[in-house]
Amino acid sequence: MTAGTGPAVIAGIGHTDYSRNSGRSEAHLAVEAVVAAIGDSGIPAHLVDGFVTYTMDSTDEIVLQRNLGLERLNYTGRAPYGGTSLCSTFLQAKLAVESGVAEVVVCYRALNERSGGRFGHGVGHGFGASTFGLSAETDHYGLYLPFGLRNAAGWIAMQARRYMHRYGIASTDLAEVTVAARRFAATNPQARFFQRPVTVADHQASRFVVEPLRLLDCCMESDGGVAVLVTSRARAVEHGADYVDISSIATGSGTRQQLMTSYDRSDARLFDELAVMAENLWSRTDLRPDDVDVAICYDHFTPMVMAQLEGHGFCGPGEAKDFIAGGRIGPGGTLPVNPHGGQLGEAYLHGFNGVVEAVRQLRGTAVNQVENAQVALVSAPPGCPTSGMLLTRR
Amino acid sequence: MTAGTGPAVIAGIGHTDYSRNSGRSEAHLAVEAVVAAIGDSGIPAHLVDGFVTYTMDSTDEIVLQRNLGLERLNYTGRAPYGGTSLCSTFLQAKLAVESGVAEVVVCYRALNERSGGRFGHGVGHGFGASTFGLSAETDHYGLYLPFGLRNAAGWIAMQARRYMHRYGIASTDLAEVTVAARRFAATNPQARFFQRPVTVADHQASRFVVEPLRLLDCCMESDGGVAVLVTSRARAVEHGADYVDISSIATGSGTRQQLMTSYDRSDARLFDELAVMAENLWSRTDLRPDDVDVAICYDHFTPMVMAQLEGHGFCGPGEAKDFIAGGRIGPGGTLPVNPHGGQLGEAYLHGFNGVVEAVRQLRGTAVNQVENAQVALVSAPPGCPTSGMLLTRR
Repeated sequence: MTAGTGPAVIAGIGHTDYSRNSGRSEAHLAVEAVVAAIGDSGIPAHLVDGFVTYTMDSTDEIVLQRNLGLERLNYTGRAPYGGTSLCSTFLQAKLAVESGVAEVVVCYRALNERSGGRFGHGVGHGFGASTFGLSAETDHYGLYLPFGLRNAAGWIAMQARRYMHRYGIASTDLAEVTVAARRFAATNPQARFFQRPVTVADHQASRFVVEPLRLLDCCMESDGGVAVLVTSRARAVEHGADYVDISSIATGSGTRQQLMTSYDRSDARLFDELAVMAENLWSRTDLRPDDVDVAICYDHFTPMVMAQLEGHGFCGPGEAKDFIAGGRIGPGGTLPVNPHGGQLGEAYLHGFNGVVEAVRQLRGTAVNQVENAQVALVSAPPGCPTSGMLLTRR
Repeated sequence: MTAGTGPAVIAGIGHTDYSRNSGRSEAHLAVEAVVAAIGDSGIPAHLVDGFVTYTMDSTDEIVLQRNLGLERLNYTGRAPYGGTSLCSTFLQAKLAVESGVAEVVVCYRALNERSGGRFGHGVGHGFGASTFGLSAETDHYGLYLPFGLRNAAGWIAMQARRYMHRYGIASTDLAEVTVAARRFAATNPQARFFQRPVTVADHQASRFVVEPLRLLDCCMESDGGVAVLVTSRARAVEHGADYVDISSIATGSGTRQQLMTSYDRSDARLFDELAVMAENLWSRTDLRPDDVDVAICYDHFTPMVMAQLEGHGFCGPGEAKDFIAGGRIGPGGTLPVNPHGGQLGEAYLHGFNGVVEAVRQLRGTAVNQVENAQVALVSAPPGCPTSGMLLTRR
């Protein structure tokens, strides 16, 4: 291989508006976001030579290539499934850049998840990676469908119930996650829930979607596109990009891993993929959880944020309910979590808007800026092979 | 990141029988192949911590993980679409190993492509990467369907006709590719066409599938699974694996790239993705085409083998018809191409059986052994983002 050009950094961020009905195609959203990320970086568009997204994304790399008029691509790759692979896409981009395989790789995700195919509608629409039918993994959903487990809320409710039972977690504990997210979103004009904070009482009054998950335990469904540009530090410096460093990045799957339904595990290993990923992540850096100034935790469902805080060692098993109590992850808290409002408050973009927020925090340009933020954790949730990364201010 | 453990090598190969009807699931085939590859390497199974395949493969990485009883995976990735990404899967494996992200990564592909969903049946079965419908790229097939272009034979016939017209290539020229492949297959007991060589006259007598492609210009459809194990050289040596080195590896897509239908190009750039990939591949090594002892060229359709020989510089544009004439790519020829019989003669496994053959040639254990083979080229075809690699005897 040719030598790489030094460590990879994140040098550009871009996104569309977040809405319930974008009025345009997913490919259109993806192109908009990619163009915005390139523009933000200051790097000439013709230098982009790689793309990475989820296997679930509907906008092919070569569709972006043609729409951007790029003569060639030197890297294209996909990370399995969706949100859990958030940082797996960045791992691929980082390895491609650092090995010299590609110069500038854009990670992207665009979806009309509210106005188009809603995840909440559940399986039965070709969910899976196979071309000619369901995949070997998604076949197993047939075992759960007769019992009403047909979408993420159902699958995760099963784990949430067990987690809550094991550690004596109440619904009002979960409410802390939502209240914090919505307080942040309330002051973020880009958020779908701008100026609409909620209280614990609001949370408690919201209907159950799947017990123990109430409506306000579940992220929204939304439309939009996000793109994040990865290149070498040398290239970022050359073009004056306001970049952030990637201190560590990792993926992992755990024992008896299933896609969203890893129930066949002991209590201690309930979220084992998170443990594997966190072990990989923290073993590749000198940073410790105490060093983290802001955490982006994938908040499709509130209990999973708590699982991530425990998984990364911010607190011990079962201790997240105390760790987050009293607004400690909200505005002005000890560890601000998802200061953009997260997917509970800003938008559901399969986690990608959280990466944008992490970069803004480290640049010092976030709308709910954490003072002097130096280190940001981006964590994907348990559920499938998961992923995480630690970003640092340059 | 943790430091890697030296250059990645191919340390194990495995496959199932090749058949028209495997009688078992694609996941079953994948597990069999992976177990065989691990066994071949001598590396303990529990050290396997990564898997890579095509986005089109129906056996999820975590299905393999569970069936092998692996407690964790540290890398999972997919390369877009199918055969053109053959070496893109190895690129991901190599980068994962060399960066220290994973120790032992198995690339695999299993499909019941004859007894299950036959590619020859064409689009309309959910072809594409999207979960909730067709992808932005595969949507464009709707433009071609009314004209009968609904599968690879049709899409490629359009390019083949242009290529043949431009350079005065006759159907009898294409026959050379088939005759060579079937002569090789005739002496390979694993080949579907064992002991069934064909002549130019047989080729000429075979019916047109889509003009100018005759039946004997098209690869077969078959069932099977193949797996190839990638690890560090240090790990391979430790366990006594009979490994081969990866001298260079590359991917690439070209101008106005489409998925199988890149017609909107000048004659000179008809197979531009091949040119991009070859430029990347050969720029990362001191090896030259003259150094290649055996070439594995993806032979789904005969003209595409000729395009690859030209694309890699074995001869100039339009010269492949002379380069291959008179049995020069067959048994005892100047440059043996696909000595296992290829996908025209052994089996269609989306290219993966060609990697197995390359490894056997470099180990000196191939059934149609090329004497003292030191360097093997593995090339994917034009059509999508394509890929290639150069393997060398250790």
